[in-house]
Amino acid sequence: MAEALNDSVGAFIPGPRVELAGATAGPLAGLGFAVKDLYDVAGHPTTYGNPDWARSNPPAAATAPVVQALLQAAAFLRGKTKTVELAYGLTGENVWHGTPVNPAAPGRFPGGSSCGSAAAVAAGLVDFALGSDTGGSVRIPASYCGIFGIRPSWGAVSLAGARGLGPSFDTAGWFAQRASVLARVGAVLLPEDAGGGPLGPLLKAEDAWINAVPATVVALAEPMLVLERLLGRAMRVDIAPEGLDTLYEHFRCVQAEEAWATLGSWVAATDPQFGPGVKERFAAAKAMDPAKAAAGRAFRRSFQARMRALLAGGGVLAYPTSPVPAPLLDASQAEQNAVRERTMGVTAIAGLGGLPEVSLPVGKVEGAPVGLSLVAAPGRDRALLALAERLATELGLPV
Amino acid sequence: MAEALNDSVGAFIPGPRVELAGATAGPLAGLGFAVKDLYDVAGHPTTYGNPDWARSNPPAAATAPVVQALLQAAAFLRGKTKTVELAYGLTGENVWHGTPVNPAAPGRFPGGSSCGSAAAVAAGLVDFALGSDTGGSVRIPASYCGIFGIRPSWGAVSLAGARGLGPSFDTAGWFAQRASVLARVGAVLLPEDAGGGPLGPLLKAEDAWINAVPATVVALAEPMLVLERLLGRAMRVDIAPEGLDTLYEHFRCVQAEEAWATLGSWVAATDPQFGPGVKERFAAAKAMDPAKAAAGRAFRRSFQARMRALLAGGGVLAYPTSPVPAPLLDASQAEQNAVRERTMGVTAIAGLGGLPEVSLPVGKVEGAPVGLSLVAAPGRDRALLALAERLATELGLPV
Repeated sequence: MAEALNDSVGAFIPGPRVELAGATAGPLAGLGFAVKDLYDVAGHPTTYGNPDWARSNPPAAATAPVVQALLQAAAFLRGKTKTVELAYGLTGENVWHGTPVNPAAPGRFPGGSSCGSAAAVAAGLVDFALGSDTGGSVRIPASYCGIFGIRPSWGAVSLAGARGLGPSFDTAGWFAQRASVLARVGAVLLPEDAGGGPLGPLLKAEDAWINAVPATVVALAEPMLVLERLLGRAMRVDIAPEGLDTLYEHFRCVQAEEAWATLGSWVAATDPQFGPGVKERFAAAKAMDPAKAAAGRAFRRSFQARMRALLAGGGVLAYPTSPVPAPLLDASQAEQNAVRERTMGVTAIAGLGGLPEVSLPVGKVEGAPVGLSLVAAPGRDRALLALAERLATELGLPV
Repeated sequence: MAEALNDSVGAFIPGPRVELAGATAGPLAGLGFAVKDLYDVAGHPTTYGNPDWARSNPPAAATAPVVQALLQAAAFLRGKTKTVELAYGLTGENVWHGTPVNPAAPGRFPGGSSCGSAAAVAAGLVDFALGSDTGGSVRIPASYCGIFGIRPSWGAVSLAGARGLGPSFDTAGWFAQRASVLARVGAVLLPEDAGGGPLGPLLKAEDAWINAVPATVVALAEPMLVLERLLGRAMRVDIAPEGLDTLYEHFRCVQAEEAWATLGSWVAATDPQFGPGVKERFAAAKAMDPAKAAAGRAFRRSFQARMRALLAGGGVLAYPTSPVPAPLLDASQAEQNAVRERTMGVTAIAGLGGLPEVSLPVGKVEGAPVGLSLVAAPGRDRALLALAERLATELGLPV
């Protein structure tokens, strides 16, 4: 274990630091990591970002198997990181624990809900960090903080011992500053890839590019050319002829139904205090029209079949992880909501599809990071991580 | 809604019956169903089979989306059914609520953990019933009670609003007396199949047949011949050259790790009363050696790749669902444990593999039912249900 960390960016939850040594030898030896505070560590409370959650739930009796696997691979735990309350938000704000600083753009939000994990990695406090991603909670903070992040195929990594938000969307993801570390963690946590063969062709998701502001498109242009050198000239595809806003709407309705099914009993029984935005989202989840949720479930089914057909041969989608860089800390709630809706039309692609997505820190807009996402068929996570490492090498990013 | 049910077999949980009308029209119109009491129904407690669970958890604020989907498809809910405590057992015993009668073999256990759902279907109280299957909890009671049952591909049906036991094994399954009803429920709940093409060749899992007692093999011989008429001569394969007991051992260790990660905090904080067997299983889960769990996780990874390779072309495994019929109600704990271990070497195939498995009520041993299982690659659930319906037709089973 190294010296005590100076948490210069407010990435860790308040209180005594939760640290654990890993095994003496293993594939992650020498790497320090942090875990979002919705994964259990035995003997410690799991706050889930909300004071009333910690108060009304017993401390963890067990350590989540995914955390256990990292310790057994010889990584060492440096602490538990802040999360948006109940993981239900994208800016990374937490009024109870304090919003972590975005080390790459201190005047902007860090992104969430895995805000503390992203900030800890971006500030160099740890080599990698576990987050979770339901609707963008790893991909967006990775894009905003200028680091690598992966949302794996849905179901690829066990969420036992982790608090849920929308079980049919929830995934265990992680961040790293270096592409090789992102892949090394994947080698420990991920199943073998389903099906083999090289990835390709490259598919440029036109609608997701049109959804991004021009400055983001400009910032990602050169990396796309390099990616085309690796995979061949991109073919243009439309992911959602019905509109990305339709994707977002269906995602929102199914997620809301699942969020209330998962957490509603606790919310109703506890009447917890919530910070701004979170309260409104749970109120909307409670009031969700069951017919809309049913329509969303039906849409998801056809969308998954469509994506499977598109990506079956090894196709790789590429598009901006987020259409814009992180909102400024003084952005109005209306501005934040506008960014949220525009962003989630894109994050809903992998969310609804159950697809793996890796975000690479390739560009800057107004001095703030924006990421490029690579997306493949479910079960191709390892190949995707290998491709990300190749692209990072070509681009001169940290490998 | 039909007239009040006479619960002649003790299938439903004690107390007022939880009944809900479905939509006025839909694909399941006219069908009554029941749900295992680990799925939430808004406004009602979820007992999870244990009095201390119901006491220490708030009533459900929401209805589980899978139950909602059945109601929206116009099925009507007739009640919540008994489960083994925390779904952690295979005989179907529940000392708090009373063990349901096995309608097909009243001197024997109904099988569990979805005991009440199986008994309700076998007694004709409902047309179908939701259960859940982690290590055999749908397949075994289906086999014991002489009805159809499916454990879907892992992850195919959302478990939002359902209590978990081992998240990376847990599935939402269901029972029916008629093969067509089993498939109609699947058409409502399941995603489109991944990949197309007809199922086949037929693969006879030799080790699972050798594991069964001779009387079971004899009882299933004729159905296997009929299956060969449909799919061609069976090819013989060994699923587990390392031994089915090795499969069971790895399954047991990973499941135990996940069970303690999922429920350990509640067990430690509540110190609940447990019936025989359940207490011991949680004590074992708490004491599970992390190195054994890690070995189990590694084994599962290679086993999944092996099964995927074996079944990729459409292959269908066939073997006895349970090696023996249901144990007698007066079987000693030692006899029950012996049956459990012998059974779970076989149920671990689909459990570790994440594979869909349908059990058909094709045979009898000493007057008690035994099922034949069909197993395919993940994502081929609908094709598997269609095959089961064809086979049922050929065999003169209820379609």
